[in-house]
Amino acid sequence: VSAPVPQVGALRAAVLSVGSELLLGDLTDTNATWVSARLRERGVSVVHHLAVRDVVVELVDALRFLAERVDLIVVGGGLGPTSDDLTRDALAAVTGAELELREDMEEEIRLRLAAVGRPLTRTNRRQAFAPVGARVHPPVGTAPSLAVDLTVDGTVGGGARSVRVIALPGVPWELHALWDTFVVPQLIELGATGVTRTTVVHVIGRGESDVAASVEPLLDAHPEVTLSFLAKKHEIQVRLTGSGRDDADARARTLPALADVLAELGADVVGVDQDDLETTVVRLLTGRGQRVATAESATAGAIAARLGAVPGASAVLLGGLVAYDVSAKVSLAGIDADDLVRAGTVSAATTEALARAARTRTGADWGIGVTAVAGPSPVDDLPVGTAFWALAGPDGGCEVHERMITGDRATVVTRLGSAALDLLRRRLAG
Amino acid sequence: VSAPVPQVGALRAAVLSVGSELLLGDLTDTNATWVSARLRERGVSVVHHLAVRDVVVELVDALRFLAERVDLIVVGGGLGPTSDDLTRDALAAVTGAELELREDMEEEIRLRLAAVGRPLTRTNRRQAFAPVGARVHPPVGTAPSLAVDLTVDGTVGGGARSVRVIALPGVPWELHALWDTFVVPQLIELGATGVTRTTVVHVIGRGESDVAASVEPLLDAHPEVTLSFLAKKHEIQVRLTGSGRDDADARARTLPALADVLAELGADVVGVDQDDLETTVVRLLTGRGQRVATAESATAGAIAARLGAVPGASAVLLGGLVAYDVSAKVSLAGIDADDLVRAGTVSAATTEALARAARTRTGADWGIGVTAVAGPSPVDDLPVGTAFWALAGPDGGCEVHERMITGDRATVVTRLGSAALDLLRRRLAG
Repeated sequence: VSAPVPQVGALRAAVLSVGSELLLGDLTDTNATWVSARLRERGVSVVHHLAVRDVVVELVDALRFLAERVDLIVVGGGLGPTSDDLTRDALAAVTGAELELREDMEEEIRLRLAAVGRPLTRTNRRQAFAPVGARVHPPVGTAPSLAVDLTVDGTVGGGARSVRVIALPGVPWELHALWDTFVVPQLIELGATGVTRTTVVHVIGRGESDVAASVEPLLDAHPEVTLSFLAKKHEIQVRLTGSGRDDADARARTLPALADVLAELGADVVGVDQDDLETTVVRLLTGRGQRVATAESATAGAIAARLGAVPGASAVLLGGLVAYDVSAKVSLAGIDADDLVRAGTVSAATTEALARAARTRTGADWGIGVTAVAGPSPVDDLPVGTAFWALAGPDGGCEVHERMITGDRATVVTRLGSAALDLLRRRLAG
Repeated sequence: VSAPVPQVGALRAAVLSVGSELLLGDLTDTNATWVSARLRERGVSVVHHLAVRDVVVELVDALRFLAERVDLIVVGGGLGPTSDDLTRDALAAVTGAELELREDMEEEIRLRLAAVGRPLTRTNRRQAFAPVGARVHPPVGTAPSLAVDLTVDGTVGGGARSVRVIALPGVPWELHALWDTFVVPQLIELGATGVTRTTVVHVIGRGESDVAASVEPLLDAHPEVTLSFLAKKHEIQVRLTGSGRDDADARARTLPALADVLAELGADVVGVDQDDLETTVVRLLTGRGQRVATAESATAGAIAARLGAVPGASAVLLGGLVAYDVSAKVSLAGIDADDLVRAGTVSAATTEALARAARTRTGADWGIGVTAVAGPSPVDDLPVGTAFWALAGPDGGCEVHERMITGDRATVVTRLGSAALDLLRRRLAG
């Protein structure tokens, strides 16, 4: 992963996550990741993530520490109705403002509770309080959001400096829903007018260092674009980040570099941005008016389920067979029992027979078959990781591939599924 | 989620995660979660998570902030070989010690590189440096780990205080591998001799508030056990935390409360700790010497895949049918086309026919069938979320259940799968 390009004069921000469950190790802080990615899109440099318990002195201490170091603090959590929810109190303490009842917010909360047949209790009413002078946003769940300005001494050469604190609910969907309406207008007000956009290129079939060696030299011609790589379990992501006046402008400035990357990587590119492997396979099949079926041993239905998870899959996925046990390879896929014994349950011949059965038993254009030793124990003297995948096509042919896949049981299932789906993608695209 | 019980005199700790990719929003900090859960097991209170970029002044600043507030800082990341890896430099800066070449570590690194046919470069050699006086642990990957003591002024009443800083690689498996050998002995040395153990009870079939109302009163009789709840997509977790001299002792002290909770929740308990729904179903089937097969429409193979993911599934999972398209319900499951039109593809009758087909086509003892409108569009005027699941049993009978499931496509698939597997679990256990 490449280092961020330092941006002179860019707004500096921190994410402060409030909740004892984070510090107890019961919950992972995905809000910090999400908020950081959104701030980066707007050209804001995030320099700290900090998580604190539901303890008001620790929350105040954290706000003071961050206020001395950044221009913007995005707080997630601590806005709920219980006595553990202390973000309102901490904001009052650091600004020196009293908490006051906001009657407009009380009414908003009352209406929301009434809609689900519940009365406004004294507990719920806590959420209607805000420090005097705070900016308030009506709830998307039941918690209003807040924004206040802190004044801190300038660290260099004296002079006071203002720090914006935006407090959002910790529930991820509420936080996400508030971003565009409550946070983005404030970012623009604070001077974050530029927009940064990251375009993700999904690559399968090459290692990270191989992809990097091919792509890095291309970027010399595109100094305005920042390059980074991310190795996932089933793919390599090439990430191209460009800046502009708005999203369309940032995208346009990234396009020449993207074109060069796509040309270089060719058929190893699965898709761009939301077009991951499954989505691309469904789209390519839809475009051809063709359908697919699977016959899965080691993956036990996971390949069909991955296609079924894509909205619109019903137009292209007929179904499949989970031929997990030896007996099911006979009963469901109709493989001859003697052939099975001769070839082995994990073998090229059995995998081809599965792919052909998937196609013929359903009338699909394409049939996918897979077998593997997923572990933890060897099968028929074959080591864990032995994997076969086959694709039977509309021309009546069938190709079979074999590879050793390293990793645990879940990794073998994921990588084998990706290999099989990627084979279909290449044949549909080629 | 309940608040942590404050522990007087307990060791206070912080987790400091180093890496610009965290602040860019490219990577979520799962190390902080993992380390916090491990520290909690040892009775250590984690009061801060802090993440910083690969910038040495920010890293030094963060170490100083945390050292004033805790007794132990666990640093993850920044020990790699590149110029972005600055944890060594920051530790030298805060302790005031010079970095020195540790020849023993240089040799460890040289040997590890030689094993994969690579020479020791000047870049790799950076990893063999440590502040003078630091405790060093040989690499499990290529990065040695470090521990140093900082001296800070006491915040109350003066007097110097010592803070241990333990720096580990950021790669999760390396960090995990070093825990027992490098970190735990230091925790004991620092006085964290107690052990805290959390027992997780997996519950399906009741809401969180219902579970809480049943369980909370029971805990009055067990003041030594701390209770918390966690609502997951497919289950509620009841978490019981007890302390003791060692793991066995902590477990023994939690047992009376666990027994009461299990008695109260009865058949709604899926299992304890690693015994989640899929594992429990596989274990119960194995115990009876029985086998299962599926015929899945909306879940498209996901139920079979969930069972197939459990090691040992091959003894109990025969296989299944993915009867996704209408035509596959006829061709694979053998449902009469006229019956299908009459009943509707998403209906009790079709779901029962699928469950029966799963059983009879494979010779399994149990057959699971599911149909649903997973979204985003309605089917046959049925709203998104309409869901049926059926279980055909060894006695020739078949029961069918129906429910509306709220949530997006992935949520419907997950919850429907859990409902079907939980029905089988109850029949096997009952």
